[in-house]
Amino acid sequence: MKPKSNLTTLCYIEREGKYLMMHRVKKEHDINKDKWVGIGGHFEENESPEECLLREVREETGLVLDRFRMRGIITFISDRWQTEYMFLYTADQFHGELHGCDEGTLEWVAKQAVYGLPLWEGDKIFFRLLEEERPCFSLKLKYEGERLAEKVLDGCKLESWHI
Amino acid sequence: MKPKSNLTTLCYIEREGKYLMMHRVKKEHDINKDKWVGIGGHFEENESPEECLLREVREETGLVLDRFRMRGIITFISDRWQTEYMFLYTADQFHGELHGCDEGTLEWVAKQAVYGLPLWEGDKIFFRLLEEERPCFSLKLKYEGERLAEKVLDGCKLESWHI
Repeated sequence: MKPKSNLTTLCYIEREGKYLMMHRVKKEHDINKDKWVGIGGHFEENESPEECLLREVREETGLVLDRFRMRGIITFISDRWQTEYMFLYTADQFHGELHGCDEGTLEWVAKQAVYGLPLWEGDKIFFRLLEEERPCFSLKLKYEGERLAEKVLDGCKLESWHI
Repeated sequence: MKPKSNLTTLCYIEREGKYLMMHRVKKEHDINKDKWVGIGGHFEENESPEECLLREVREETGLVLDRFRMRGIITFISDRWQTEYMFLYTADQFHGELHGCDEGTLEWVAKQAVYGLPLWEGDKIFFRLLEEERPCFSLKLKYEGERLAEKVLDGCKLESWHI
């Protein structure tokens, strides 16, 4: 088996002021275990970012995206797993029927309620950046275990960032 | 020696209607041999896109970028070398003194004259997209040798594209 690519996509699908969130409760060995995340996964060989995005959304939700936007790039550094470069998307038009997923349970969550869920700390930063419509940003997040030790936005260190 | 990352940056630095171009004439074994390209190179370990960008520009030109913008992502597929994901930037503010580079000779070239240089065929596509101010695009280019066999822009195949 080939090692997984260090490139991933993550998508927040929007409908009526809500995001489609996945509660990662189904897999035993999952770095996201019990957390709420968006829809996405690792690039397969020779995929472009949007090919990975469309495939992952189709596989995990059954939905086909009709309109999406790339919103930013996240560089994840961690002392526990390999460095990951994540292409972040939102999508506001889609068709198809939502089906279950073997990686977690899917739920529409009001945008403001998202901040109250068990999330990775850094995810709250990119929810805020999405809300602010910040154009195509680059966010570098450095984790020590579950603790977010450093956050750099478009090359500038974020010393204090209160959500 | 670790294998090179499959992630790269490429930057077109602008001044008075010209781009800073590098004529790759100095290295014998260079997939870009004799071609004109922008400034850039491979990510080093744990670098974010803009960290790689700033380091490569400093190393290859001596310049320090004061303002830059990410313009798009290029997915390069080739039958001759590994798949590469390239973060494309332009920069219009910088300081420092231009020095020589051991990878090629540096020259300011008028933007319209760039199309007449020996370039990779696909590069002309992204020069045109930069000119049109297309927001943060994703371009997938598939090469067979030097021939550009397929080009896909934001998920749509470009059947005919005349520069």
